[in-house]
Amino acid sequence: MKQYIKYNPWKIIEKGFTPSYNQISESIFSLGNGKGGQRANFEENYSGQTLQGSYVAGVYYPDKTRVGWWKNGYPEYFAKVLNAPTWIGIKTKIEGKELDLNQCKVIDFERILDMKQGFLQRNFIAEFDDGKQIKVQSTRFMSLKRDEIGAIRYSITPLNFSASGEFILDIDADIANQDSNYDEKFWIEIEKSTSTDFTFITTATKKTHFQVCTAMDYSILQAGKTHILSSLQKIETEKYVAHKFNLELKENIETVIYKYAAITSSMYEAVENLSKMASALLDEAKHDGFEKLLEEQRLEWAKKWKESDIVIEGDVAAQQGIRYNIFQLNQTYSGKDERLNIGPKGFTGEKYGGSTYWDTEAFCLPFYLSTADQKIARNLLVYRHNHLQKAIENAQKLGFNQGAALYPMVTMDGDECHNEWEITFEEIHRNGAIAYAIYNYVKYTADKKYLATHGLEVLIAISRFWAQRVNFSEEKQQYVMLGVTGPNEYENNINNNWYTNTLAKWTLQYTMEATDYVKNNHPEAFQSITKKTNFDKANEFAKWSEIAKNMYFPENTEKGIFLQQDGFLDKEQLTVADLQASDRPLNQNWSWDRILRSIFIKQADVLQGLYFFEEDYDIKTIRQNYEYYEARTVHESSLSSCVHSILAAKLNKQKEAYEFYLNAARLDLDDYNNDTEDGLHITSMGGTWMNIVQGFGGMRIKENHLSFQPFIPEEWEKYSFQIRYRENLLLIDVRKNNVKISNQSGKSVTIEIFNQKYKLDAFKAIVVEMQPIEILA
Amino acid sequence: MKQYIKYNPWKIIEKGFTPSYNQISESIFSLGNGKGGQRANFEENYSGQTLQGSYVAGVYYPDKTRVGWWKNGYPEYFAKVLNAPTWIGIKTKIEGKELDLNQCKVIDFERILDMKQGFLQRNFIAEFDDGKQIKVQSTRFMSLKRDEIGAIRYSITPLNFSASGEFILDIDADIANQDSNYDEKFWIEIEKSTSTDFTFITTATKKTHFQVCTAMDYSILQAGKTHILSSLQKIETEKYVAHKFNLELKENIETVIYKYAAITSSMYEAVENLSKMASALLDEAKHDGFEKLLEEQRLEWAKKWKESDIVIEGDVAAQQGIRYNIFQLNQTYSGKDERLNIGPKGFTGEKYGGSTYWDTEAFCLPFYLSTADQKIARNLLVYRHNHLQKAIENAQKLGFNQGAALYPMVTMDGDECHNEWEITFEEIHRNGAIAYAIYNYVKYTADKKYLATHGLEVLIAISRFWAQRVNFSEEKQQYVMLGVTGPNEYENNINNNWYTNTLAKWTLQYTMEATDYVKNNHPEAFQSITKKTNFDKANEFAKWSEIAKNMYFPENTEKGIFLQQDGFLDKEQLTVADLQASDRPLNQNWSWDRILRSIFIKQADVLQGLYFFEEDYDIKTIRQNYEYYEARTVHESSLSSCVHSILAAKLNKQKEAYEFYLNAARLDLDDYNNDTEDGLHITSMGGTWMNIVQGFGGMRIKENHLSFQPFIPEEWEKYSFQIRYRENLLLIDVRKNNVKISNQSGKSVTIEIFNQKYKLDAFKAIVVEMQPIEILA
Repeated sequence: MKQYIKYNPWKIIEKGFTPSYNQISESIFSLGNGKGGQRANFEENYSGQTLQGSYVAGVYYPDKTRVGWWKNGYPEYFAKVLNAPTWIGIKTKIEGKELDLNQCKVIDFERILDMKQGFLQRNFIAEFDDGKQIKVQSTRFMSLKRDEIGAIRYSITPLNFSASGEFILDIDADIANQDSNYDEKFWIEIEKSTSTDFTFITTATKKTHFQVCTAMDYSILQAGKTHILSSLQKIETEKYVAHKFNLELKENIETVIYKYAAITSSMYEAVENLSKMASALLDEAKHDGFEKLLEEQRLEWAKKWKESDIVIEGDVAAQQGIRYNIFQLNQTYSGKDERLNIGPKGFTGEKYGGSTYWDTEAFCLPFYLSTADQKIARNLLVYRHNHLQKAIENAQKLGFNQGAALYPMVTMDGDECHNEWEITFEEIHRNGAIAYAIYNYVKYTADKKYLATHGLEVLIAISRFWAQRVNFSEEKQQYVMLGVTGPNEYENNINNNWYTNTLAKWTLQYTMEATDYVKNNHPEAFQSITKKTNFDKANEFAKWSEIAKNMYFPENTEKGIFLQQDGFLDKEQLTVADLQASDRPLNQNWSWDRILRSIFIKQADVLQGLYFFEEDYDIKTIRQNYEYYEARTVHESSLSSCVHSILAAKLNKQKEAYEFYLNAARLDLDDYNNDTEDGLHITSMGGTWMNIVQGFGGMRIKENHLSFQPFIPEEWEKYSFQIRYRENLLLIDVRKNNVKISNQSGKSVTIEIFNQKYKLDAFKAIVVEMQPIEILA
Repeated sequence: MKQYIKYNPWKIIEKGFTPSYNQISESIFSLGNGKGGQRANFEENYSGQTLQGSYVAGVYYPDKTRVGWWKNGYPEYFAKVLNAPTWIGIKTKIEGKELDLNQCKVIDFERILDMKQGFLQRNFIAEFDDGKQIKVQSTRFMSLKRDEIGAIRYSITPLNFSASGEFILDIDADIANQDSNYDEKFWIEIEKSTSTDFTFITTATKKTHFQVCTAMDYSILQAGKTHILSSLQKIETEKYVAHKFNLELKENIETVIYKYAAITSSMYEAVENLSKMASALLDEAKHDGFEKLLEEQRLEWAKKWKESDIVIEGDVAAQQGIRYNIFQLNQTYSGKDERLNIGPKGFTGEKYGGSTYWDTEAFCLPFYLSTADQKIARNLLVYRHNHLQKAIENAQKLGFNQGAALYPMVTMDGDECHNEWEITFEEIHRNGAIAYAIYNYVKYTADKKYLATHGLEVLIAISRFWAQRVNFSEEKQQYVMLGVTGPNEYENNINNNWYTNTLAKWTLQYTMEATDYVKNNHPEAFQSITKKTNFDKANEFAKWSEIAKNMYFPENTEKGIFLQQDGFLDKEQLTVADLQASDRPLNQNWSWDRILRSIFIKQADVLQGLYFFEEDYDIKTIRQNYEYYEARTVHESSLSSCVHSILAAKLNKQKEAYEFYLNAARLDLDDYNNDTEDGLHITSMGGTWMNIVQGFGGMRIKENHLSFQPFIPEEWEKYSFQIRYRENLLLIDVRKNNVKISNQSGKSVTIEIFNQKYKLDAFKAIVVEMQPIEILA
């Protein structure tokens, strides 16, 4: 844990340069625009510790799998988030000496991420060993509106000398992934040019043959006037293009370099047009100029904030944390493209290889559902629908048939790209989260038609998987599910994971409900699905009903708890309170076998199920399970706290709920787990949004309205959040004494506050007194 | 499965050259002398499919571990059986054309492994594309007596031409392991020379810094007369030395090249003496000459056969199979050096990385106990005693303390060198096999003093491991052992593996028994052990007794079986009869998760325990378990059949017993599992010996005598085997009607035949009628 980021409601601020924190800051100050991202690497050369990272959405590389011992069914390739050509380079030499913050003395360094306006700023004075000082100010952003464009304003002022400066502006495509399995570079060069009109380089990925054109242009201002270069050296080497020139720098006179980049990829344009398109976009950007682009950026971010901001008063750390998370979620996924998804590290690092985990469905979908047009959340669902055939093939590889689908644990384009057997083959609850997301989306939006066009097909395939994956135990005379890994990855290959069994049973039931809905309301669609999937309703329903009716669930009635898995009570019954500080985190201090056979839980497992299906359980059951499992959960996944916090809130454990929130909301800003240097925990940021809205706000989706049971953490003066719900936009404003809900849309809406329904007319608000804690339980 | 090896009681014969079988034959025809080995690679260049392999005992390389996802406790290095410099090269060109069996037409090819005399012979006629034919005969062996020496007689006769031949005799140290994790070569060159006096190359392994000197010398005979070379080209390149010369070859005149090699290693000699030593040994070998060396070889093998041969009459396939296995066991381990052990592939391939598995204790020890001086078996035990400290450190890495030891799953020098968590961390039953081997050795030899000098210390450390590895289940009110993998590796991370729990309980009890013996009979040794191990007899005994008394064992009383693990009866209750041919072998046709959750068993697990401790169970229990588990076992480990066969024999299922034997005994000769090309299954060869002696011969070790309950497979006329038992040498000769046991030693001995004791005086024999089957059960 580190706490060097300054508190500020709208800005992320680092003061002073600490080289050992540089990789962490490179992650924290990352920029993105849904179509790509850029770590906060320096424009200058930097010889110190750094993780260079430029990423282009959807462009990946299937790196050959590396395992200790091959097992049947492993995927041959492990897809990699791909480090792409770097467009930010502005390298400076003063009288032959490189401007390199690892070599110079660095004075008054600050790095600022302006979340309100969406740009990164960096200011410093560098002092060379001969005492020469230059002041540098850099402002950089990736345009939300023109999402192929990046722009930099790079200002240099000599403070105590005049001299000639040498500058290199470049695009470097000779880059590698740090996590390459075989130390291989993934890009090959296709075409390049350094003409003064248009400097670019087009590269292609090996194997996947994506093409990316990265182009640059620039202009120079000296003492406020445009400077035309009299001479210029053009550099072209393998996978590298640059312009090199000299500028006379005068004491206390500012020189500004505006660098513009355009990044076009074969995801969106035919390969033969990539450079033409980049050229046109670049010309336009340069013509409009940096200030106009930046003004556009402000306006775009204002729109985002209008829809998704959460305001907290009285607790600037909490305010900064949640805004930062919302900012990063919006930088990562714009929802414009159904082929994209939300990687656990977004565009901020290489780790976790593939792009999509069950994180999206379980922890990110609610944020996009409530803060953006419903088609954006819908695209997250369509992403999985598009991969259905591959999920069916994936299940076939593992021995399933008749159209059963097992979605991959980690994927880029539908192929499984993870290869630990205990995860890939066994952590099958992901399939249930994908079904649950369909339910969640339909319930929230009332877009039932989605079932007919997309959802049902996916549900049938997943239900078929569950029906084949269980087996009838003669011993128990019930259906069991053997050899799974639950969300708690500190157990592997267990039998009857309560959460997975619960999801499986629920999926079967919901699929039958959805089937009947489609059959009755969209008979043609039903016919076509039946044909396409060879669906045998009578027999499959019979089988599914039989399984759902006779599914086995491990529990202990004496303790009043569901058991995470068979045999859970055979473990040594310790609690987290029994652990020493030196044991934590377990995953760094204990051997894997010790973790496995211990009682300690990595992340919400039974509680994840109670969170999903809380309406099916009484409050006593939820409390008993919460208290048993919370005492045994070490929260070594970033996805754990929000579920515990939401349940704690429901159980009136408000202090606990708040503490969970604090850890989660500033996970990356405070480098809580000492791993922010690898990139940000983007998907868990969705969990912190849920934490405030569902936990503190107590928001639940009822059949045709939203319900709220808010409380306010003691430390806060007020908090407010906006919610899109179908055709309405609501502002929920919670204070110590009351909650005010404003209908900001032109249509009336029904809402429920503290179990009381209200009809809110267009543009009207209601204020309800806060209810004492006792009444809520 | 393939059946191209010709049946012969003393020889392994391949007729005709089938390039696709070449790698298989290279394994099958391997040579070894306990200090090294050589696959049956050709002396000539061969451009076809080949796995080159020369191995020097004890010389290994710790290759950096490669895993998909690192887990705490993994070893950093995965030791590798090291492919060493090749000494066999004799490359021939006739008028510029390479003699390469992949390029020539090959006529009358035969490869013969003479097991009685211990040499490899290869005869063929090669026809070049211009019709020229040469006849080649090569005879090669690695001397058992002079175990640094290899020798080749390479004879060439032009059949239809006379011409000049170019010959290169070389040592090639520029070799790689096929299974190198990072495609790295493991050897560096230290010194070399190509002087006519002494041609050699000394190489060192990276990291481990072993040094090996490989030296060669040669002589030439033409038309029966020594030929002195008039000119000679000496070749020295990176990690390569050779002599190149021309010989005039005359039609129908034989030219013979005798090539001698000496291989000395830093395992046995100071590095500064390696080449000197090689030079001296080489001079001596060349001086004595090929024929004398070969005569020595015959005599040495005669001695081996006198002690360990098994004779089968009436079934040449079975005879060839068992002799082959005994031959390979004796080629692999001579027992002279307590630092060496028996790798699963011996010196015949690279696979299975490290050298020593629990195979040694469970499947090889009985062979060496009964067919060689007891100090040879003792060395196998001392090997583990020498690694005790490392086993304690290994356990510490996993979180155990107070001198608990976990022996590695795979090791070269005591360090764990395997890295799948489900094996390394969980397949802990190996610890029990090491304890059992001590019991087995002491029981067989009556060398109880071994407990005082070595055994007890190991037993205490293993018992401490078990005592910490179990935990008390409040639910069951018994001690349980969670998260293990049993011998059946088609299950991982299971709870309460019956076999492991049984071994653990037994180890605790035997350790207490051994402790009392040492305390009473070797009080000084006991004191010193107590001090060295901080042994607290009173408290540790109390804990061990408590655990042994309250250990939990899963069982089903209705079916009358022990359960392999908790929840075993929840599995779909199929049997092997339900499988299709296309499912087999499961490990090639089913995904790993399907294998894991299926009921099918890779190798004896509960039955392995019943085999070890058969005296503790009544015949009904053994039968019920045998019938239940045999029906569910797919025997996809080479170590499975022998245990099933021995139990089947005990249960009078003689036909079954015989069938198991047949598969196992010719596993490599018939390439039963399509994997002989990787090397031979050396350790399972020990199992086939047990199969005949314990299964068919019904030999058991009683307190102070051996007991026999032989039967003879229907297909056989007779079989006989020799047994060393303490100071006696017994010949057991089993025929259709009777069994004859001869005491071939000068001391009387008590034996038991069909539950009747007999005293056999020196050099006397007894003949007992075979008993009808019914009586035996």
